[in-house]
Amino acid sequence: MSNATMDNPVLTHIDESGQARMVDVSNKTATARTAVAEGRIRMSSEAYALLSAQQNAKGDVLNTARIAGVLAAKRCADLIPLCHSLPLSFVGIEFFTNDTDYTITVRATCRTDYKTGVEMEAMTACSIAALTIYDMCKAADKGIVLEQIKLRYKSGGKSGEWRNDD
Amino acid sequence: MSNATMDNPVLTHIDESGQARMVDVSNKTATARTAVAEGRIRMSSEAYALLSAQQNAKGDVLNTARIAGVLAAKRCADLIPLCHSLPLSFVGIEFFTNDTDYTITVRATCRTDYKTGVEMEAMTACSIAALTIYDMCKAADKGIVLEQIKLRYKSGGKSGEWRNDD
Amino acid sequence: MSNATMDNPVLTHIDESGQARMVDVSNKTATARTAVAEGRIRMSSEAYALLSAQQNAKGDVLNTARIAGVLAAKRCADLIPLCHSLPLSFVGIEFFTNDTDYTITVRATCRTDYKTGVEMEAMTACSIAALTIYDMCKAADKGIVLEQIKLRYKSGGKSGEWRNDD
Amino acid sequence: MSNATMDNPVLTHIDESGQARMVDVSNKTATARTAVAEGRIRMSSEAYALLSAQQNAKGDVLNTARIAGVLAAKRCADLIPLCHSLPLSFVGIEFFTNDTDYTITVRATCRTDYKTGVEMEAMTACSIAALTIYDMCKAADKGIVLEQIKLRYKSGGKSGEWRNDD
Amino acid sequence: MSNATMDNPVLTHIDESGQARMVDVSNKTATARTAVAEGRIRMSSEAYALLSAQQNAKGDVLNTARIAGVLAAKRCADLIPLCHSLPLSFVGIEFFTNDTDYTITVRATCRTDYKTGVEMEAMTACSIAALTIYDMCKAADKGIVLEQIKLRYKSGGKSGEWRNDD
Amino acid sequence: MSNATMDNPVLTHIDESGQARMVDVSNKTATARTAVAEGRIRMSSEAYALLSAQQNAKGDVLNTARIAGVLAAKRCADLIPLCHSLPLSFVGIEFFTNDTDYTITVRATCRTDYKTGVEMEAMTACSIAALTIYDMCKAADKGIVLEQIKLRYKSGGKSGEWRNDD
Repeated sequence: MSNATMDNPVLTHIDESGQARMVDVSNKTATARTAVAEGRIRMSSEAYALLSAQQNAKGDVLNTARIAGVLAAKRCADLIPLCHSLPLSFVGIEFFTNDTDYTITVRATCRTDYKTGVEMEAMTACSIAALTIYDMCKAADKGIVLEQIKLRYKSGGKSGEWRNDD
Repeated sequence: MSNATMDNPVLTHIDESGQARMVDVSNKTATARTAVAEGRIRMSSEAYALLSAQQNAKGDVLNTARIAGVLAAKRCADLIPLCHSLPLSFVGIEFFTNDTDYTITVRATCRTDYKTGVEMEAMTACSIAALTIYDMCKAADKGIVLEQIKLRYKSGGKSGEWRNDD
Repeated sequence: MSNATMDNPVLTHIDESGQARMVDVSNKTATARTAVAEGRIRMSSEAYALLSAQQNAKGDVLNTARIAGVLAAKRCADLIPLCHSLPLSFVGIEFFTNDTDYTITVRATCRTDYKTGVEMEAMTACSIAALTIYDMCKAADKGIVLEQIKLRYKSGGKSGEWRNDD
Repeated sequence: MSNATMDNPVLTHIDESGQARMVDVSNKTATARTAVAEGRIRMSSEAYALLSAQQNAKGDVLNTARIAGVLAAKRCADLIPLCHSLPLSFVGIEFFTNDTDYTITVRATCRTDYKTGVEMEAMTACSIAALTIYDMCKAADKGIVLEQIKLRYKSGGKSGEWRNDD
Repeated sequence: MSNATMDNPVLTHIDESGQARMVDVSNKTATARTAVAEGRIRMSSEAYALLSAQQNAKGDVLNTARIAGVLAAKRCADLIPLCHSLPLSFVGIEFFTNDTDYTITVRATCRTDYKTGVEMEAMTACSIAALTIYDMCKAADKGIVLEQIKLRYKSGGKSGEWRNDD
Repeated sequence: MSNATMDNPVLTHIDESGQARMVDVSNKTATARTAVAEGRIRMSSEAYALLSAQQNAKGDVLNTARIAGVLAAKRCADLIPLCHSLPLSFVGIEFFTNDTDYTITVRATCRTDYKTGVEMEAMTACSIAALTIYDMCKAADKGIVLEQIKLRYKSGGKSGEWRNDD
């Protein structure tokens, strides 16, 4: 099976005839792998104020989003069709609130010791945690936006370490 | 139960003591409801070219993403903790590719005839469809970004029609 | 939306451009609907004898298959991408064993009071129940065959009653 | 625990008192394992013609069925009660259309490096892919039949290679 | 179909031949229904003290358990084989901590407007919320006990109101 | 990461700031692990008599509960938010009926060869099996109680063997 290389990148999920396929990882070696994804939720100042004002509210909203993100990481292969099921050693969800521009940044970190990377687990956990915040704040602001969900870091496997600090 | 109004918006998923809660819709009336969400996937020119060049590839990638989006809409209440399960009458996923800036816009439309809106179903379908495209193209570009996932349109229920053309 | 008619049958799950789509049932009326599907499992005389000989074995194998079939019917929309989620009023799984030709016929009956038919629920329940029997007997016969899984009966909806006694 | 042998086949999923049980694989060794299952969908000439005639239709129907099959393989242990969860290295779904007798043959190939075989994953993937084709073509022919779903090949584990070319 | 009455109670999930079956609710009428279940978690004074001492800990443990309970209620028909899927209007999980005997009482309330009761949804939500507390506290006390999980209240349907204040 | 020790027990699922977290098992070693959980279902003499009297009824009720328990064990990480997904080598569910006090004791045994214990899998399997018995007997006795669900035995991992014979 051909894999993507620097010189000859290919879409590994598409076979020679252009059909979708799952990558065969039978001959890959398990290595320690980490992936970190981030995304940002931007809301109105009113919604942000409500979230911050009510007693305990921010804590419970963020914990609910964290739990949703952790569960989504574990269910990633059920959601993303060509992903492999894999045993996650760790899923962590952190939040960084910014009182100046009314945004919350979600960071999802996933780890495994397996044959494939955990980028999709991190990206999915980040997205579902962000959607949960949207859900819990949409009564105050339907126009909340999920912005710039992207992979920030990846290590392990043949391609080694990769970092995006944009 | 208090609901958000123009004059007195509240976070309906947070009770008086700041705890997360599901909204009680026992006394709400079922009405025809629609929600439309959109998001954009931005990739490198190289990844976009690969996607467009290979025989059938774009068709199969987009159909795979569509199927993932439809399945995710139906499973929304399983993923977003405080969402109500509801019977969807329709889920549609459309793609708009832009050869100039190497982006794909995903539009998800959901419909129901029920007591609650389908914003979360549309937002979740849109996000999972976009994540599926990320998954299938990440071998060629790990830096693909999911941008500006937001609600575009909503109708039905007490609050009536709402539109965001930003 | 165009629907299949006697004179002009179409593939309702394919739109004008040939793309997969979910049918929009927003404007359909809920009616009482039933569907019955059947399939047959053919095994070696040795496997069939084992199943019949061991104390209680047949009862527990068939009950396990029944439970698997009922659960699969309820999860049909999760498995068949373009199916609508719907509230099933009833799922029944019956077995007819034939000691002469070493076959077991599985019959699945599903009922709903909803806008779409329950053919897929019955077909899926029948298939998963049959696969469960395969699983539980495969140690004695890997060559077990699932034969002739088909819809037998359907009522309700615009097309009314349909029967296949082949 | 007794296992099936040539001389003394037993139903490994049934204990001494005839009760259903999961096989204990604690002491089994992980080996590379493959299983291939096949089944056939037979439809009317009219339905087959529609599938072939419409622009892109066949491609999207088969890709949708492929995605459903891959997802079902990953979820096999959720559907078949006594199956073990296992990490699949590969799931492949191929289709062979026969314009003469209006049939489509579905072939599902699964691979793992684990303690149990992947027959059930292949059989389940094949069945769900076939059911998805049924679903997408049933508007044109309710009488579509799923025929002869069976294991074709199996390798790995103590029993080694097994092949059924019937 | 025979139903349980005061004078002639039967096991409605068992048919005349003693086989498990799903109850057919095709002819039942939808009514507003509520069910309340309660259970108690008893832990060592040390574990209870840790839970209470650490900053925020109790809040996050209980919110995590609440989210798990709400999700479990929505997934009840997936877990309890002969339960009907139904649209829940409300799921609420409350906790009552008792500093004297180191117990936490979990109360789950479910509501629907449907043809069957929501006892199982309330019982399942209560159990999974309690298990989540066990999970999060087991590092400090493996001997935590779940005690007296039972239905407390039920209304709606033919049998009307029922209350258990034992 | 700090772990619970005899001298310094902590809540491993809560971080320094009191937030819920998944334990990172990246550096743990896989060992053979077993966990046994038990619980008791207490019903009225009338319900117990019905269960025992009807032909086959007890067998099918208990087998249905067993299947529900096995499936729940495999789905534990989906239900208990901070649990790790892991490959179970074995799930066994046993029942002990007591004709004198009208109780059924459920014992669930789980095994894995992995980095974390299987207590939650055993506790969850036991609870869902018990809830299934409740569901199938509730028509005859709504007041059935689930009593004393607790861990009985645990082996493997750093903490070694643990037993609770209370």
